[in-house]
Amino acid sequence: MKNRFIFTCGDINGIGPEIVIKTLEVLKKKSTSKFYVLCPPSVFEHYYKLSKSKFQYEISENFNDADSVVTVIPLKDLKLNYGKPTKNSGKISFEAIKIAVKFVNEGSVEAIVTAPISKTAINMAGINFPGHTEMLAEWTSTNDFVMTFLSKKMKSALVTIHNPLKKVPGLITEKNLHSTFNVVLNSLRNDLNIDKPKVAVLGLNPHAGESGIIGTEEENIIKPSILSFQNNQFLSGPFSPDAFFANRRYKKFDLVIGMYHDQVLIPFKMLNFGGGVNYTAGLPIIRTSPDHGVAYDIAGRNLANPASFLEAVRYAGIIIKNRKRKAKNSG
Amino acid sequence: MKNRFIFTCGDINGIGPEIVIKTLEVLKKKSTSKFYVLCPPSVFEHYYKLSKSKFQYEISENFNDADSVVTVIPLKDLKLNYGKPTKNSGKISFEAIKIAVKFVNEGSVEAIVTAPISKTAINMAGINFPGHTEMLAEWTSTNDFVMTFLSKKMKSALVTIHNPLKKVPGLITEKNLHSTFNVVLNSLRNDLNIDKPKVAVLGLNPHAGESGIIGTEEENIIKPSILSFQNNQFLSGPFSPDAFFANRRYKKFDLVIGMYHDQVLIPFKMLNFGGGVNYTAGLPIIRTSPDHGVAYDIAGRNLANPASFLEAVRYAGIIIKNRKRKAKNSG
Repeated sequence: MKNRFIFTCGDINGIGPEIVIKTLEVLKKKSTSKFYVLCPPSVFEHYYKLSKSKFQYEISENFNDADSVVTVIPLKDLKLNYGKPTKNSGKISFEAIKIAVKFVNEGSVEAIVTAPISKTAINMAGINFPGHTEMLAEWTSTNDFVMTFLSKKMKSALVTIHNPLKKVPGLITEKNLHSTFNVVLNSLRNDLNIDKPKVAVLGLNPHAGESGIIGTEEENIIKPSILSFQNNQFLSGPFSPDAFFANRRYKKFDLVIGMYHDQVLIPFKMLNFGGGVNYTAGLPIIRTSPDHGVAYDIAGRNLANPASFLEAVRYAGIIIKNRKRKAKNSG
Repeated sequence: MKNRFIFTCGDINGIGPEIVIKTLEVLKKKSTSKFYVLCPPSVFEHYYKLSKSKFQYEISENFNDADSVVTVIPLKDLKLNYGKPTKNSGKISFEAIKIAVKFVNEGSVEAIVTAPISKTAINMAGINFPGHTEMLAEWTSTNDFVMTFLSKKMKSALVTIHNPLKKVPGLITEKNLHSTFNVVLNSLRNDLNIDKPKVAVLGLNPHAGESGIIGTEEENIIKPSILSFQNNQFLSGPFSPDAFFANRRYKKFDLVIGMYHDQVLIPFKMLNFGGGVNYTAGLPIIRTSPDHGVAYDIAGRNLANPASFLEAVRYAGIIIKNRKRKAKNSG
């Protein structure tokens, strides 16, 4: 059976619709797959012309009838307002994710690839979610999930996500660490087919606390939590964060677990030049996305690079394949 | 007059003496300079032989009598104990810094280049300093100083240094930011001869707080502190830290000010592969050092790379030259 992917177009005032369409232009000959796109039709048509795309597509409200490789499922049409968050762009980007989750929950598609949304626009629409990850967790009734980042150079995962820095130390608890370790190890096995993964755990403080001289979380929480974790044979650390990246130690590990957003995102993005992939590990469904934002500053100018979205589709395909194989082997 | 540098050999159980000697072997024909080395003579001789060095040196207790390019000023001789911190290695590394500061305060040398010390060894010796920077500040009666990192690819500075992460948000105050801005702008002008510097300021929180949704320090402290700073025409920001490095925006600035240790040290070290330089801006004296640690794991094996120490000597030379020119122009 063909792999069926659903793409959301993200915040329509950002580069989302443009990178989705540029991705479809690259993938148009991929006859083993079927792509559904949630987007207002006029926005889709605008970017299709702007990017001089040539792939065939149909617009269909009726999800199951669609025959072509690309089907646009129309969202409410909206005027484009390049380069800024609006209440409506927030609302429609939110609804697209909701519909996509419904389709994947029903089994109509195997994976969701989401284009970037604006937290500001989502907030303007009166919706109170910090990001995609948290929406997906809620709508799939998932308590234990982990924001991970995938690329050929480095894979990584976060113990805390979109938290103010001052709240981070309080969230580094044995419970949260064990949950992260569990989700990450299961995902490496089931989603990426790495049965005996090597996972590095970073410290929280400069020099990983230097034996308690610069912060105590490593000695009091992180080390004991690694030791008390039942599958700790797959874990190493906590490592001094700057030395870990300076010495390119991530090359020796299948995945690096970081304690907070910028500890991982700064090196990950430096290594991948906007070609990395965001993956929500721990969900029953499969969802990937590019690792960059809405890029309002270049919206509507045909300048956006679809590399990261393409890579997100590629990883979604890998995860579909691995999960099918695991299901078959255990079934 | 010749430039006179004094080198400390750092923690003798680490790679300090080895990189100092390898640096001298490279610099031995630099007849415009004179190098003094604070080191136990037997340690110096051991590494001189191990690295098959050929430069000429003399050992002299009498600082002013030394005639050769390289003079070893003997510290108390100690048995080497490769690869681990000891009470004695901590004590002697501390004393070397104290003597070096005395010589530069007296005007016997123009600059200090320090090899890495171990905070653990320093603590074992009962000495309570978090690092070189804080010692140098105390011994030169300096209140406002900034740890900066120099390289051809990126220059950067830290608002907080060796603080536990949980203490960082409380240290991001208008007073500390203004002090950092002042020291950095003065140092760029006087030490690096950049009269109209372009300086970037990073945010503290993920996405620089995203307009207050993920943390309030950007809106409540960092932005107002930039606006209220009298020379704010040289400052931009606060920038979203991960996007700033992902988009290589540091290339457009003379220096990047970060809020905490790993926010700057992770990208700086990734860019410079252990070839960067640590410089303490704001001191009346000139002091540089390599940006790496004692590297106990490779100590005593003739594997250490002196690139960062060499670069530290080069930057110390640049700063000597610029300060002399400024003094002449204003004198």
